[in-house]
Amino acid sequence: MNKASTGHFFEDFALGQILYHAVSRTITEADTSLYTALTGSRFSLYCNKEFAQQLGYEKLPIDNLLLFQIAFGKTVDDISLNAVANLGYAEVEFLETVFVGDTISVVSEVIGLKENSNGKTGIVYVHSKAINQHGFQVLSWKRWVMVHKRQEGMQNMFAVEPQLANQVPFENLATPQPFNAAAYDCKFSGENFKLNDYEVGEWIDHIDGLTIDHSEHTMATKLYQNNAKVHFNQHQMSSSQHQKRLVYGGHIISLCRTISHNGLANAQWLAAINGGAHLNPSFAGDTIYAVTQVLDTQELGSGLGAMRLRTLGYKNCLWQELKPQFDRAVEGKAQLPSDFVLDLDYTVLIPS
Amino acid sequence: MNKASTGHFFEDFALGQILYHAVSRTITEADTSLYTALTGSRFSLYCNKEFAQQLGYEKLPIDNLLLFQIAFGKTVDDISLNAVANLGYAEVEFLETVFVGDTISVVSEVIGLKENSNGKTGIVYVHSKAINQHGFQVLSWKRWVMVHKRQEGMQNMFAVEPQLANQVPFENLATPQPFNAAAYDCKFSGENFKLNDYEVGEWIDHIDGLTIDHSEHTMATKLYQNNAKVHFNQHQMSSSQHQKRLVYGGHIISLCRTISHNGLANAQWLAAINGGAHLNPSFAGDTIYAVTQVLDTQELGSGLGAMRLRTLGYKNCLWQELKPQFDRAVEGKAQLPSDFVLDLDYTVLIPS
Amino acid sequence: MNKASTGHFFEDFALGQILYHAVSRTITEADTSLYTALTGSRFSLYCNKEFAQQLGYEKLPIDNLLLFQIAFGKTVDDISLNAVANLGYAEVEFLETVFVGDTISVVSEVIGLKENSNGKTGIVYVHSKAINQHGFQVLSWKRWVMVHKRQEGMQNMFAVEPQLANQVPFENLATPQPFNAAAYDCKFSGENFKLNDYEVGEWIDHIDGLTIDHSEHTMATKLYQNNAKVHFNQHQMSSSQHQKRLVYGGHIISLCRTISHNGLANAQWLAAINGGAHLNPSFAGDTIYAVTQVLDTQELGSGLGAMRLRTLGYKNCLWQELKPQFDRAVEGKAQLPSDFVLDLDYTVLIPS
Repeated sequence: MNKASTGHFFEDFALGQILYHAVSRTITEADTSLYTALTGSRFSLYCNKEFAQQLGYEKLPIDNLLLFQIAFGKTVDDISLNAVANLGYAEVEFLETVFVGDTISVVSEVIGLKENSNGKTGIVYVHSKAINQHGFQVLSWKRWVMVHKRQEGMQNMFAVEPQLANQVPFENLATPQPFNAAAYDCKFSGENFKLNDYEVGEWIDHIDGLTIDHSEHTMATKLYQNNAKVHFNQHQMSSSQHQKRLVYGGHIISLCRTISHNGLANAQWLAAINGGAHLNPSFAGDTIYAVTQVLDTQELGSGLGAMRLRTLGYKNCLWQELKPQFDRAVEGKAQLPSDFVLDLDYTVLIPS
Repeated sequence: MNKASTGHFFEDFALGQILYHAVSRTITEADTSLYTALTGSRFSLYCNKEFAQQLGYEKLPIDNLLLFQIAFGKTVDDISLNAVANLGYAEVEFLETVFVGDTISVVSEVIGLKENSNGKTGIVYVHSKAINQHGFQVLSWKRWVMVHKRQEGMQNMFAVEPQLANQVPFENLATPQPFNAAAYDCKFSGENFKLNDYEVGEWIDHIDGLTIDHSEHTMATKLYQNNAKVHFNQHQMSSSQHQKRLVYGGHIISLCRTISHNGLANAQWLAAINGGAHLNPSFAGDTIYAVTQVLDTQELGSGLGAMRLRTLGYKNCLWQELKPQFDRAVEGKAQLPSDFVLDLDYTVLIPS
Repeated sequence: MNKASTGHFFEDFALGQILYHAVSRTITEADTSLYTALTGSRFSLYCNKEFAQQLGYEKLPIDNLLLFQIAFGKTVDDISLNAVANLGYAEVEFLETVFVGDTISVVSEVIGLKENSNGKTGIVYVHSKAINQHGFQVLSWKRWVMVHKRQEGMQNMFAVEPQLANQVPFENLATPQPFNAAAYDCKFSGENFKLNDYEVGEWIDHIDGLTIDHSEHTMATKLYQNNAKVHFNQHQMSSSQHQKRLVYGGHIISLCRTISHNGLANAQWLAAINGGAHLNPSFAGDTIYAVTQVLDTQELGSGLGAMRLRTLGYKNCLWQELKPQFDRAVEGKAQLPSDFVLDLDYTVLIPS
């Protein structure tokens, strides 16, 4: 019997099953520098120790999206190695700030299972938690993936689909502690827009495009120790539908967040992801763009506010070309064009 | 109104204007490791803590060229996002050693403005300074860029062109303090050539070529948080003159400096850049070579000397093929061939 | 005379010659993160400070294969810059654990010399040692390379070929001190196989393939400050046999070791390399796969065992396609197919 694992198939999951994911990880300054080099991130809180200290942090904090990528990476070997598709995220909550030098472990619970009527695949819902070296939960998230069955055929099992909130409520958001609002100086971010400068319904076209190359997306995905085959194995992918490697969807989220800095530079804290979908795959050579709509805002006190945002990522075209089709799609008169790659509903904290 | 910035145009600059650049940056060991991986640098002072300590440094110093790249990167968003071309550098002075863990902030003053007669562009001269967390100036430099006008047409403004020195005088060079010359051992650099082994007028053909690939130059440029669009957006650049992304000129400087290690391994300290020009653009796939001429040398005392060098970077051909044309160009009988990409006049410190 | 070195040729080596290699290196957390990003390594001991501390390590250890790559890189400029081929390795012994922040220096002795009858090349055998900042030997290895002669023709010198052991005996292996076997928890590696689960003769097909891209292999090789021209200079390699840059053979070893994690996740410690050969070159675009045969196992006491392994790396095909040809080659009835790129005989430590 071959000792190498082929990963879990739909039949290997059971409701309530607990999976302790391997390869816990100490997150270092180097991971932050690599994240900057791989995505181009310019959020100043994560690359400026002096600024972080002024705000009350003793050490340099880790960008929550980098934390998410690393934590997510741990779950792939057990959950999505044989995934057909990553269907969605919900209730992604960043609960405690993670600092340079912290070590995170990740554990998941199977919270839902549902066969697909084709007899070939099923949907697995998991609730994953990242825990730091002190035993505190720093991140909690739910996701569901479509997974291949080991053997074709229906088991006619009872489907369990968890109730998933469509938003992490503003009042549940963890806020940075301690936070010295008086020390927040927009000089460090380069933009003066604070909470009250944004209007609900407002659109921001982030303008800049970032082209993806092979080594960059594979290095990012390897940095997260995410070992999903579809990103790495051209020999195998040559006989797939698109005949090429797929870019890890999380890398697209990071690129869109980086691009969104232009217009949202003070939205330094990613506090929650309410929901998200990868609308189409991306490939090396694609140029990613992003626009954001402000969905809601709320003053939280102590000089901080929350802003619920919808960021749309699309590729190889400009927003003015895409907007008419998007509007028709919103009205139900057309399909969303295949240029869209990401639809992300998330909440950020921003000085007020 | 869209909150994302389209960057400054010629009309947005005013003489004497001060620009505090965003995204100050803590420079870490990781930035040094990435710089090594991205350029192949082998200057031993920046990767060997024991050697640095023997010479009198308590912590590992940051390569001045890496410092320059990061400091320069900060200025792009305010100064050269809409640049047509980076025309030149002058009076680049490295004033204090920067160490692992230091945080640098960058501020610029507009010191010159000049409209071009085409009515479409103008030239902006800036004096930029990088300041560490203790408030000390660590780097000062001047550069001038050609910037698009927002609106076509002549304003017939009074042109102000600053006087720029064509050399940072040897006597103005900051020398490493403390510096234990007796501890300098050529075993660590791998070459025995010291100040007095070099003759004024001497040429060094550094032999080795380095091919540029996409992820490497874009990662370097992103590491510096330089967000100039021309390096990153293939979708936009497809309709430009060359139909492809341009390699950041600073990356070419770093590659030429790396290549120059072979023959200049003890010229560890970059002390000043007297002037520089990017003669032609470089693209992914190009192989960069370099030659250096020794322009001047001077003993500084305490076991250190200064050497003024001219390094020429060129691509996809050998020096013996290029030299005859170069010689004719020097005599004014021919154009400098378009294989040349860099002409850099700079000063290094070297044990004497 | 040009000050840049063209490297050593066969005539430049003498029996007993000692070469102190330049560019000693402090190995940092960043080198570990980069190694993860460049290879995808998931061995948990090197990325999880908490796990390392439970096992008795005060600081995060450096992966022995990363140590080898960096130490090997130092020797290239003096030994193999003009190598035609890296012929083999023997007696590679990891003697002491190297930790984040340690600085290693490398020295080599020429232990064998042999002209080839073509009069154009010769074989140089060297014994190299890496020494940490405390003066302790941390790594010792022998390798032999085919090197160009400066001038064609036979010198009819006396050939000296060193006796090389075909195995580092189990009883000579350095074991991690202190090692708290009771704290070893397979939860951290993700696999439950320990020493006694492996049978001599057993094969493991590691399944996963990793495609190599340009920036990734050149960045890895530059990180190690290995400056062999064949990996970096496309302009020069365009006129070579394969018309493209060769991937550094050491990078293939690292990729195969990474791939071997699936089935060997508890074989965390690389203790020795008994022998190795690069069977064919690899290029950007190739997808690397690996299989391993267990050659021998031995209980070492204190909860640790040793396992001698043979890992075969091959490219762009599956093991089931290759196995019949491999079996015929073993029986001497066929040549080993050119899909094979690596044949590595090494010894790992694994909890028992």
